[in-house]
Amino acid sequence: MTQNAPIDFYFDFSSPYGYFAAAKLDFVVAPYDRAVIWHPILLGPVMEKTGNRPLANQPIKDEYSEYDWARLARFMDLPWCTSGAMPENFPMSTVRTARAFYAIEESSGQDVAKLFAMTAYTAYFGEGRDINDVSIIADLAGALEGVNADELVQAIETQAIKDRLRSEVDDSVEKGVFGSPFVILDGEKFWGSDRFWMIKRWLKSGGW
Amino acid sequence: MTQNAPIDFYFDFSSPYGYFAAAKLDFVVAPYDRAVIWHPILLGPVMEKTGNRPLANQPIKDEYSEYDWARLARFMDLPWCTSGAMPENFPMSTVRTARAFYAIEESSGQDVAKLFAMTAYTAYFGEGRDINDVSIIADLAGALEGVNADELVQAIETQAIKDRLRSEVDDSVEKGVFGSPFVILDGEKFWGSDRFWMIKRWLKSGGW
Repeated sequence: MTQNAPIDFYFDFSSPYGYFAAAKLDFVVAPYDRAVIWHPILLGPVMEKTGNRPLANQPIKDEYSEYDWARLARFMDLPWCTSGAMPENFPMSTVRTARAFYAIEESSGQDVAKLFAMTAYTAYFGEGRDINDVSIIADLAGALEGVNADELVQAIETQAIKDRLRSEVDDSVEKGVFGSPFVILDGEKFWGSDRFWMIKRWLKSGGW
Repeated sequence: MTQNAPIDFYFDFSSPYGYFAAAKLDFVVAPYDRAVIWHPILLGPVMEKTGNRPLANQPIKDEYSEYDWARLARFMDLPWCTSGAMPENFPMSTVRTARAFYAIEESSGQDVAKLFAMTAYTAYFGEGRDINDVSIIADLAGALEGVNADELVQAIETQAIKDRLRSEVDDSVEKGVFGSPFVILDGEKFWGSDRFWMIKRWLKSGGW
């Protein structure tokens, strides 16, 4: 493997554990001189292959998960359900949010797209806003430097951006991604927001 | 909650992540003056309720899990599949192993039972031995101070020990346990072998 090869980070905007990982991953990786490339994906097609269901649709686990998310947010000092309840639409398709990410990436680069992603995650899980709604996307992205909200709204509906997301999802499935968050680092796969200690270990010592 | 109330640790002898948690939990908790009570359970009845299947029986996830277990063992410096392959019977029912644990606990106490559990886990995941086989149980337990292997083999088949295991399984389901490893601490539930940082945080600060 090439030294300092970039790290790939896959997540679904509807995934709470993706939110927790997104808030932390770049900081964990910072000392190791590696770029982190963010890839929002849609878990639906992936879950079909593994036979999984969203945590929120599994008896017993759903209650635990909801409690666990609130506790994690508290432990990590991140905004969480400030209205007192989970977002009205949860889980939901975040196809437009993901397309918006790639449109922003193509016009303004990964760093601005990452800012959009964190803004969207916070709006969704912190404030319960519907981040798959184009007017909300425009509102959130319009506040970012260099992003033209009108152009973004148009870009989301272009075939090029639709194809970009489709190709990202296909590529993630091909690489073996089956959940959110998911990190691939030198070909090593790490699933879940609790594997930062292993990612650090890998970065420090090459896996030993 | 009572100060210094004991911590309950639930695991299935057929669960690799249970093995990793068992190797670590008591050391994590040691500075906080809390007893850890180990409860081997059988995940079968629990999985029926949640609709889950063993990781080893899920496409894509099975491959990842098998790789992840080997990597975790390497990172934690624990014996793992020294034969080069997963145990021949995996996953399997470990009803006799769990009964043996409780029989040893009743005759010799939790600490000796914990030693048996770690010995059994290591024999299973390290060496591929069939730890649900009574002759192997007798062999492993016979090496522990104060344990009479013949008496143990008899105890495993008594109604009292069968009832003890059944009541432990029922009790775990009632408390909301749905996976292995599972820790309950001051009523807080922690699922998985990656939540030691949260358990430590809880012990240090009472959850904040």
